[in-house]
Amino acid sequence: DHYIICGYGRIGRMVCQEFSAKPLPFIVVEQEPERCQQLEEAGILFVQGDATNDDVLEKAGIREAKGLITVVTSDSANVFITLTARGINPDLFILARASEDSAQVKLMRAGANKVISPYKIGASRIAQAILRPSVVDFIEIAIGANNIELQMEEIQVNAASRLVGKNLIDSGIRKNLGLIIVGIKKNQQMMFNPDPGVTIDADDILIALGKSPDIKKLEKIALNG
Amino acid sequence: DHYIICGYGRIGRMVCQEFSAKPLPFIVVEQEPERCQQLEEAGILFVQGDATNDDVLEKAGIREAKGLITVVTSDSANVFITLTARGINPDLFILARASEDSAQVKLMRAGANKVISPYKIGASRIAQAILRPSVVDFIEIAIGANNIELQMEEIQVNAASRLVGKNLIDSGIRKNLGLIIVGIKKNQQMMFNPDPGVTIDADDILIALGKSPDIKKLEKIALNG
Ligand SMILES: [Ca+2]
Ligand SMILES: [Ca+2]
Repeated sequence: DHYIICGYGRIGRMVCQEFSAKPLPFIVVEQEPERCQQLEEAGILFVQGDATNDDVLEKAGIREAKGLITVVTSDSANVFITLTARGINPDLFILARASEDSAQVKLMRAGANKVISPYKIGASRIAQAILRPSVVDFIEIAIGANNIELQMEEIQVNAASRLVGKNLIDSGIRKNLGLIIVGIKKNQQMMFNPDPGVTIDADDILIALGKSPDIKKLEKIALNG
Repeated sequence: DHYIICGYGRIGRMVCQEFSAKPLPFIVVEQEPERCQQLEEAGILFVQGDATNDDVLEKAGIREAKGLITVVTSDSANVFITLTARGINPDLFILARASEDSAQVKLMRAGANKVISPYKIGASRIAQAILRPSVVDFIEIAIGANNIELQMEEIQVNAASRLVGKNLIDSGIRKNLGLIIVGIKKNQQMMFNPDPGVTIDADDILIALGKSPDIKKLEKIALNG
């Protein structure tokens, strides 16, 4: 149940930082000796080698991995890594980086579950910061680390939780915890701004917005409280 | 009251697309003949020249501009453009792109109001897509274009609106329009998850979440409804 990060360049490095902060178990696959030296010094688990090579991905534990994130610079390399990984593990969650727009479709065809283009995301954020500056502030705070005042978090409801079978009002999530439920994902289907009368079922994913300590309380209740 | 976009590279191009879609008036400053040719063909207003040159920025109307977005590839060029622009217009909103981490501080010191690093934003989105996939889905829908089901929008309350002086419950925003107010910005200060008893004042910025047509209704009411 670990993650494999292919590429310890600029993007790969930042992804590692966020995974370490969580913390989430991961291993890096990197070819360049210089970068492997940096991984060594940073105390990060890694496999030196070419991620388009089956044996290298096997060494990184691809059969037991929960997900693979391929973020090398070259789009064709990311496509090749995706193809290789999908060939070994059909159930793996694969997230791939795209540089060119044209790579998006090819990466999905190669078997990626999600494709993210840093350029596109960055350009969109720049435009949004002009078009809707307060919304951007709000979102940066809500999904940023270390903001106690506001967090947006997803919480899955366990069958053992007392929330199961209750509607949103009776759950007390708003009244007792001060949290807003802005979305509920039921069977992969997202309900936005759910009505207070909506019933919470086991395995629902609640998208909660509120203070960090209150979200931690809801996480406990959703587990077995 | 137009915007000046310096640099018609990869990022600049995408920013232009989003501005055109809104639509928001803008002019591009670009030096390279090949890119100017593309601007010409796309029917986009532009000034050919070096954006670190006062005369070029004057030609782009910097004294009357509302904001300047500098998104050339080189950090040092972005710093130089920021310094030049700030020297001419002290009140201009300047948004600058940073590639290296170290450029962030220098750009702020040069007079930028906001600095955005596409790499950082992209890497963070990649990590979040693993750490909180449903939150990322939610946000991509809420701030994406053309999603009628969910939009997150900021709406400033005009003094002439009937909302002024009412608290959130009495405003009917939730009950009649089905919108959630997830934040209120009062005097540059953001209140998160505001209490239903909070009073709406003139010039407040409401962060509203809900269906696109309902948000349009609120925009009208906030203006003079
Ligand atoms: Ca990388
Ligand atoms: Ca550019």
